[in-house]
Amino acid sequence: MRYELYYWPSIQGRGEFIRLALEDAGAHYVDVARKAGGIGKMERLMQAHGIFAPPFLKAGKLLISQTANILHFLGPRLGLAPESEAGRLVLHHQSLTIADWLGEVHDTHHPIGPGLYYEEQKKEAKRRAADFRSQRLPKFMDYFEDLETSGYVDLSLFQMIEGLRYAFPSTMRKLEPGYPRLMKLHQNTKRRPRLAAYLASKRRIPFNQQGIFRRYPELDG
Amino acid sequence: MRYELYYWPSIQGRGEFIRLALEDAGAHYVDVARKAGGIGKMERLMQAHGIFAPPFLKAGKLLISQTANILHFLGPRLGLAPESEAGRLVLHHQSLTIADWLGEVHDTHHPIGPGLYYEEQKKEAKRRAADFRSQRLPKFMDYFEDLETSGYVDLSLFQMIEGLRYAFPSTMRKLEPGYPRLMKLHQNTKRRPRLAAYLASKRRIPFNQQGIFRRYPELDG
Repeated sequence: MRYELYYWPSIQGRGEFIRLALEDAGAHYVDVARKAGGIGKMERLMQAHGIFAPPFLKAGKLLISQTANILHFLGPRLGLAPESEAGRLVLHHQSLTIADWLGEVHDTHHPIGPGLYYEEQKKEAKRRAADFRSQRLPKFMDYFEDLETSGYVDLSLFQMIEGLRYAFPSTMRKLEPGYPRLMKLHQNTKRRPRLAAYLASKRRIPFNQQGIFRRYPELDG
Repeated sequence: MRYELYYWPSIQGRGEFIRLALEDAGAHYVDVARKAGGIGKMERLMQAHGIFAPPFLKAGKLLISQTANILHFLGPRLGLAPESEAGRLVLHHQSLTIADWLGEVHDTHHPIGPGLYYEEQKKEAKRRAADFRSQRLPKFMDYFEDLETSGYVDLSLFQMIEGLRYAFPSTMRKLEPGYPRLMKLHQNTKRRPRLAAYLASKRRIPFNQQGIFRRYPELDG
């Protein structure tokens, strides 16, 4: 199966969770919006098929959107989730919890509204980020530290840790020693051969100030 | 199949989306935390099975959590979703978009952190609610007005409109005439016999100031 991934071409964002799964599995895929004319094609498909926001995936005749839904679909097909319904439900639950966590990361720099610039909500962002660093981040880290995870969820946790290190370097340096399982998972995941090759390639877009993980030193405490 | 639903007993919250599906289908279920000793049982299960937050559902040996995941599981079993994977993926996408919308409703009164009281973030809430009323709410309403929906997604959209009317009565009075499909869907759903019986019963917890939909007049513009 040749997959078509549709996502903004200049950020990791939510699309990166799909890219990691496709790359780690050595899947055959095209990152359509990064090709000439791709953004126009993406916008036309969204309009025609009632898609709220990227990322979405074309797999044969199927168009699938919402990050966790795409991973749920791809998991067993890529060997990154069990085939059984019971096993898939567990991974999907964990994946949806990561989606909630990621949403809270986004809201550290956009607590008032996604349509406003960061500079227009900087004061509120400082307060929200302080709450995130002291309450929410440890809550999610505690939760995933104690959990058994596998498959595409491990790849998503790797990405969360990469992103959090980029956005909150000082906070993470203090927190990390308390999370040996997550740190080991991060390290082992990074060494998976196909993933390592991807991370070293130009296909991996660097973190930047337009994505979900952004480095604003004033939000890092 | 006898289902066990686990959710906070005093609010509609996220659990209500599951209750509506079970009730509309005439399913056999127990709302466990509303029985004596139920909250303790819920907390023990969460601890033992690595569940981040209610609601979760027990179906035989399966424990399923995250609202959209539960609806995705129940849909075909309750006759509220097609059996085909393609059909189920479409409903799940729509349902996850409703979950995002609901999260934004929550954040109108809790823009800084879920662990702080509303009174501690009232100023930021006013700003976030203004953005929600003028930008985000019409964006979601536009999206769902133009979409074909069915099954459990219709029940969830009914609940969104009920909740929005409770939380933002003045805003909704102004917006509603622009959304004839959604208004008709709401009215038709309300008349479904088993749903109507549920809404008139004591099993339907009234909206209140502890749930996701809260009535703070200062947030209604």
